[in-house]
Amino acid sequence: MAASLEKNAPHQVVIVGGGFGGLYAAKTLAKANVNVTLIDKRNFHLFQPLLYQVATGTLSPADISSPLRFVLRKSKNTQVLLGEVNNIDPKAQQVSVGDRLVPYDTLIVATGANHSYLGKDNWKDFAPGLKTVEDAIEIRRRIFSAFEAAERETDPEKRRALLTFVIVGGGPTGVELAGAIAELAHKTLREDFRNIDTSEAKILLLQGGNRILPYIAPELSQAATAALQKLGVVIQTNTRVTNIENDIVTFKQGDEVQEIPAKTILWAAGVKASAMGKVLADSTGVECDRAGRVMVEPDLTIKGYENIFVVGDLANFSYQNGQPLPGVAPVAKQEGEYVARLIRLRLQGRTLPQFSYNDVGSLAMIGQNLAVVDLGLIKLQGFIAWVFWLLIHIYFLIEFDTKLVVVIQWAWNYITRNRRSRLITGREAFLEDKIVNDSSHYQTPEKKQPASI
Amino acid sequence: MAASLEKNAPHQVVIVGGGFGGLYAAKTLAKANVNVTLIDKRNFHLFQPLLYQVATGTLSPADISSPLRFVLRKSKNTQVLLGEVNNIDPKAQQVSVGDRLVPYDTLIVATGANHSYLGKDNWKDFAPGLKTVEDAIEIRRRIFSAFEAAERETDPEKRRALLTFVIVGGGPTGVELAGAIAELAHKTLREDFRNIDTSEAKILLLQGGNRILPYIAPELSQAATAALQKLGVVIQTNTRVTNIENDIVTFKQGDEVQEIPAKTILWAAGVKASAMGKVLADSTGVECDRAGRVMVEPDLTIKGYENIFVVGDLANFSYQNGQPLPGVAPVAKQEGEYVARLIRLRLQGRTLPQFSYNDVGSLAMIGQNLAVVDLGLIKLQGFIAWVFWLLIHIYFLIEFDTKLVVVIQWAWNYITRNRRSRLITGREAFLEDKIVNDSSHYQTPEKKQPASI
Repeated sequence: MAASLEKNAPHQVVIVGGGFGGLYAAKTLAKANVNVTLIDKRNFHLFQPLLYQVATGTLSPADISSPLRFVLRKSKNTQVLLGEVNNIDPKAQQVSVGDRLVPYDTLIVATGANHSYLGKDNWKDFAPGLKTVEDAIEIRRRIFSAFEAAERETDPEKRRALLTFVIVGGGPTGVELAGAIAELAHKTLREDFRNIDTSEAKILLLQGGNRILPYIAPELSQAATAALQKLGVVIQTNTRVTNIENDIVTFKQGDEVQEIPAKTILWAAGVKASAMGKVLADSTGVECDRAGRVMVEPDLTIKGYENIFVVGDLANFSYQNGQPLPGVAPVAKQEGEYVARLIRLRLQGRTLPQFSYNDVGSLAMIGQNLAVVDLGLIKLQGFIAWVFWLLIHIYFLIEFDTKLVVVIQWAWNYITRNRRSRLITGREAFLEDKIVNDSSHYQTPEKKQPASI
Repeated sequence: MAASLEKNAPHQVVIVGGGFGGLYAAKTLAKANVNVTLIDKRNFHLFQPLLYQVATGTLSPADISSPLRFVLRKSKNTQVLLGEVNNIDPKAQQVSVGDRLVPYDTLIVATGANHSYLGKDNWKDFAPGLKTVEDAIEIRRRIFSAFEAAERETDPEKRRALLTFVIVGGGPTGVELAGAIAELAHKTLREDFRNIDTSEAKILLLQGGNRILPYIAPELSQAATAALQKLGVVIQTNTRVTNIENDIVTFKQGDEVQEIPAKTILWAAGVKASAMGKVLADSTGVECDRAGRVMVEPDLTIKGYENIFVVGDLANFSYQNGQPLPGVAPVAKQEGEYVARLIRLRLQGRTLPQFSYNDVGSLAMIGQNLAVVDLGLIKLQGFIAWVFWLLIHIYFLIEFDTKLVVVIQWAWNYITRNRRSRLITGREAFLEDKIVNDSSHYQTPEKKQPASI
């Protein structure tokens, strides 16, 4: 047991990151005899598994976000600090947030992962990825702006490029994006346009490996392929993207090189650990893997520091079947809960056996009434998998925020294929009003008018 | 009757602007024997009267927006064109959208109004106004970031400035913003913070005239004043803002000059007509008033052009009691409907008597269970006015989009004081992850990881 855990003063737990790992750790510590400080750059927790539905216009960002303070308002031992940790001092046991030092007895680092462009960071502007609310709004803007521009375009070639959507990466995010865009094009939007037939849109899903959804059983992967193809998605496996420029993507399948003009290119291919991994490596000497993930001990601490834990996408935990656990929400959640329980037990002089992930299975939504669910022994596809997917997500959303009305709205939007949230917004999303310089002509110096009623 | 209205080819109606005026004109023309083109810079109609609820974290932008194509999908005679009109040629009867020319037989201009900073456009950055979704998100970011920064701040003076909110302008928008911020500070957020007492926030409402809500009856204005004061809002009438700088607002009441440090300054004071007014003036010679509004004829056409109509906030219609009609949604809606009916009748060789606004009354929401409603003979305040306000808005929202679930959610959020939507978002809303340059260390060239499950 570390010396720092044997003090009499209230034990200080600092959690960096309010994703699934950090937040479930904080929730599990709510009634422990510790003080908790949760530090995050954002003021809300994001239910990332549904972010693709924001990007495709079904949900609003707030539908899948909960203000951290709101979620933790009843945890009187917990305070939330909005800020970015830029340094960790493991000797002094403190982290720096701006110019402020926050001391800890136990530190939990759960800062997750970002996109990785495989060393080609210049692809970023042409092919945005999907990690943040801002990413989702940007992707939403691109998708719906492309349909709008196609409606205006008279040149058939340009129109074709505007109606071509390329998704790089055949994991769950890529599959869900491809399915949702296909549904938009072939179902939701068909009635809305007058000059284009949105169902002529081409949706191309590029996968590096030999099948999509490599983490689930091959037969489900096959079922997903068939379902996507039925929706009109063209899937190309064993394909490596070799270049992305403005509106052009180049890729290679075997020796065949293809160059496709596409206005909308989305990146769902690679992730790298957040920068906090490097901060930890520099300050503690802990090893990171090639994806920047921190190599953790069997109890999720890092080597030489019994009071520093790493959980979630930032952690490389390879003690089950030799492979690192996947970067998915259930892993982060279970790791966060485990660490919190371990901290509580340690304060009583007890401990826990090493962390072990209880695999709840994998699932991916393809479209209306179509999903694949791999629970190990049980494998579901089609409508029944879709219902299962729906129930699981309703369960998680309710557990999280008890906002039943939101869940009903969400399910309703989903079932009715409503795309009410398909706003094209953002700072550069619309043409600014021309500035009128003749100000004397355009001002009302005295009169104050109601802007709304 | 204009010659252009006597053709045999389908009559082309072009509507510029998808606000209340333009959209109700389009809806009313849905079954007429005309072709309609609705041109807007945005792809959605915004229910502006509730925009302050987005700015204060109760609703999401999509909750009060409807995609124009969705609203008009059943109107097969109508097409929506996303773009900005930059010129009008009344002789050739066409408008320019980018480099595209759109011909019309009848033109309806309904481009609304923007903020006016009374000639002090440099105040804009320090005191944002509330007209667009982006404005609302920016104001939301500022309000909630101020509370967050106050929670971190240890200097009492700086903390006071962070917890000071100044709203310039005592019309409906100013009153609604002040009431909503007061409720946040005194009710919603109190449980969420640990270091600050949010109820110590100072909310200051500055009004140029001698009472707030000058458009409603004096006794209701008094009731609103009392209700706001009870919520903790300080109201200062007969007050002119003389300067706004970063975090400091200076104002004058009589001879007394006050300078108040305030992190959040919001502008709800003046509006000016959109730039299309000037475009119309330049191309047709029509007169505009000092606020840039187009002087319209009794039938909402402009002088010399029987086939050009101006409706909504852009129009100055002064044939009822000598005053221009206020820039509110019901006026725009009725004007849009009138013009559409007139166009239909003209095609049958008939006409309509001059436009006449049926004043449905004025109302403003102050806070939970508190509103004021002025229906002329009937004046309501307090809880009953609040219920009335709620029913009116539910009625309008349902009429508009039949999204009952959204309305239920909205009413539910409103009644339960939920502020689920209080996300701090936007391009500059959060600290970017530090960029890690050692890319070899942080990339996974082959492995594609699922970003979500």
